[in-house]
Amino acid sequence: MTEKVKVGIFGLGLRGFSLLKHVCDIENVKVTALCDLYEERIERATNYMKEKNIELPKFCTDDYHKLIACEDVDVVMIFAAWEAHIPAAIEAMRAGKSVAVEVAGAYSIDQCWELVKTYEETKTPIMMLENCCYGRRELMLLNMIKQGFFGNIAHCDGSYCHDLREEIIGGNVNKHYRLRNYMNRNCENYPTHELGPIAQWLNINHGNRMVSLTSTASKSVGLHDYVKKHHADDEELMNTSFNQGDIITTVIKCAHGETIKLTLGTTLPRFYSRGLTVCGTDAFFDENTKTIVRDGEFTPEEEENWLKENIGNEEKYLEEYEHPIWKKYQEEGVREGHGGMDWLVLNAFFDALKENTPMPIDVYDMATWMAITPLSERSIQMGSSPVEIPDFTNGKWCVK
Amino acid sequence: MTEKVKVGIFGLGLRGFSLLKHVCDIENVKVTALCDLYEERIERATNYMKEKNIELPKFCTDDYHKLIACEDVDVVMIFAAWEAHIPAAIEAMRAGKSVAVEVAGAYSIDQCWELVKTYEETKTPIMMLENCCYGRRELMLLNMIKQGFFGNIAHCDGSYCHDLREEIIGGNVNKHYRLRNYMNRNCENYPTHELGPIAQWLNINHGNRMVSLTSTASKSVGLHDYVKKHHADDEELMNTSFNQGDIITTVIKCAHGETIKLTLGTTLPRFYSRGLTVCGTDAFFDENTKTIVRDGEFTPEEEENWLKENIGNEEKYLEEYEHPIWKKYQEEGVREGHGGMDWLVLNAFFDALKENTPMPIDVYDMATWMAITPLSERSIQMGSSPVEIPDFTNGKWCVK
Repeated sequence: MTEKVKVGIFGLGLRGFSLLKHVCDIENVKVTALCDLYEERIERATNYMKEKNIELPKFCTDDYHKLIACEDVDVVMIFAAWEAHIPAAIEAMRAGKSVAVEVAGAYSIDQCWELVKTYEETKTPIMMLENCCYGRRELMLLNMIKQGFFGNIAHCDGSYCHDLREEIIGGNVNKHYRLRNYMNRNCENYPTHELGPIAQWLNINHGNRMVSLTSTASKSVGLHDYVKKHHADDEELMNTSFNQGDIITTVIKCAHGETIKLTLGTTLPRFYSRGLTVCGTDAFFDENTKTIVRDGEFTPEEEENWLKENIGNEEKYLEEYEHPIWKKYQEEGVREGHGGMDWLVLNAFFDALKENTPMPIDVYDMATWMAITPLSERSIQMGSSPVEIPDFTNGKWCVK
Repeated sequence: MTEKVKVGIFGLGLRGFSLLKHVCDIENVKVTALCDLYEERIERATNYMKEKNIELPKFCTDDYHKLIACEDVDVVMIFAAWEAHIPAAIEAMRAGKSVAVEVAGAYSIDQCWELVKTYEETKTPIMMLENCCYGRRELMLLNMIKQGFFGNIAHCDGSYCHDLREEIIGGNVNKHYRLRNYMNRNCENYPTHELGPIAQWLNINHGNRMVSLTSTASKSVGLHDYVKKHHADDEELMNTSFNQGDIITTVIKCAHGETIKLTLGTTLPRFYSRGLTVCGTDAFFDENTKTIVRDGEFTPEEEENWLKENIGNEEKYLEEYEHPIWKKYQEEGVREGHGGMDWLVLNAFFDALKENTPMPIDVYDMATWMAITPLSERSIQMGSSPVEIPDFTNGKWCVK
């Protein structure tokens, strides 16, 4: 029997608690340490483990430095506030601990470089847990793209459009880190859910790279409006001003001429959408209508009826193009958590760790994707001026 | 009986011929002169008029200067190639003829200024025939917005996404002006179908204005791919290179902080869409799913089912919010032509002319909307740098 991997978890808010449950289910993994600033969150976690008859972690702390230093921890999983992700990841790598990090944007380009350099010095395994890279749709599209289904791809769209107003504003009571970010910053603060899959489709860091972007912020009216509607008795909130624009549009240009457009919309009413499109010479995909159009499939006269009759036709492509990861997952019995993505991304990390293979989302992907946040901040501050996207691989991107 | 308005038509390609038929149907309007470079197009037009027992124009020419100078012409309607629109409009105004102009983008900022200045000198009535400003959906949304339905609007999207590959490539035989534009330029070449309605929603030139934009072009692969697929035996086309990027993304910032995102996609396979969205504090509209979301209409838990059950719910708002123009139009019996828009925009022009009221799409709107094309060209040439959008009203925009 293999010895179990000993995992320390940093951050047990809603997201961290949800991921902890999955981690407890993974074979040959044992949660040995917990860290959160708030004692009640640690209690919630240990109560859950008790109920499930899972061996309790011996080490609990409110100090993440101690979690990282703990001898009983091989792997540090960072599910904490956005600001802590990169500093904690760097510290863990320096301590020789493997690292898995929840998604976030970075705060400076410098910290992205430090992340990469620390990895290059230590060679400690590190992976960003971008669950959307394991979405069923995203993986089917990846599979189709690699088989040439879309032909030559010129453009992709993606968005994080999700009405988070109560989550952000509730920050006062729920200690949510989003609130302070929306008060003080103005940027594409959450790019990776859509950019991660798109970067994989367009071979970013593997034969292609993102070279520049512009970013533009709309005015900020959604959060104050929400406070007026639902928290008018909260004087502090009523007097809070929010820097974050309601809609952030970021346009990225790639080395091979593709463009990527990202939209962040989290502070106005709407339905959830990651708004993915793939625009190629042989086919078109659109997430909102859930359709795939193949070149030549209809004549201009048939066009209007085609859309009416084919809304949702993406499903019919699953039979031929379901990604092997999802085929296996379906065969083994589907697990919950954001439509399976959470389970798959966690397993991908522990599998790579166990088999000592390269991390499927490596430190270069992590630095490149997270860098979009401070770069968009810079562009917005400079009136949407184009800004260069650093090559964190220092040229390795073109050595496919 | 009022004397009929005498109309000279410049440009009788597919679009011009289609509009001529409507013009012949308008009360108190008489087509007295025709102009096209190609004799067969004039024949097609006169044959149609003969069949319909319409009095034939006495004056036919291949020289638009002569059409404008013709004494038997009060109104010049310009349906010709894009390049001719502004020069012909200026010449017509100088000749004291009223002018109606089909949509297009401009070629320089200077010609936009000259258009405005010529109007200010001559006070000759001029209107841009942006039919999409008369679309049923667009007018319903305008009506809703003016009634405050959407609350404070932070952002709008629009697009001209239309697979025009055969129309562009067929340019060799059909003399289509699009071909030379796609060979030589790289810009948002057709912004007004979506920008026109959005500008009206956001009070552009009437209390608000567009202040700057960035524009980014993807690589150009769609047209060459199409030539390879369908015209591989045409050596000239096979050797043609196309400057025009397949997807052009333009982000505009307005004086009151709203952002507008425009997408041009005409050279890759896809379904038609003007991709309109309205993102406000009280409601959200999305053209692709044809849905309107009202703030508070569903809880996060109900969200996924809400979209499934409400796709297409825009229709249910027609009862309350149908625009008066469309109510009247429905009562009087619907006419054909791009879903009624063509008929409505032509009538709006002749009504304003007859009643001597301000043109509903005036010279400032025309210059401002058309200017997006050369400004996007400039931004693209300068690596997506932000460029200033001129105030063609010279401050009149803030004197509501």
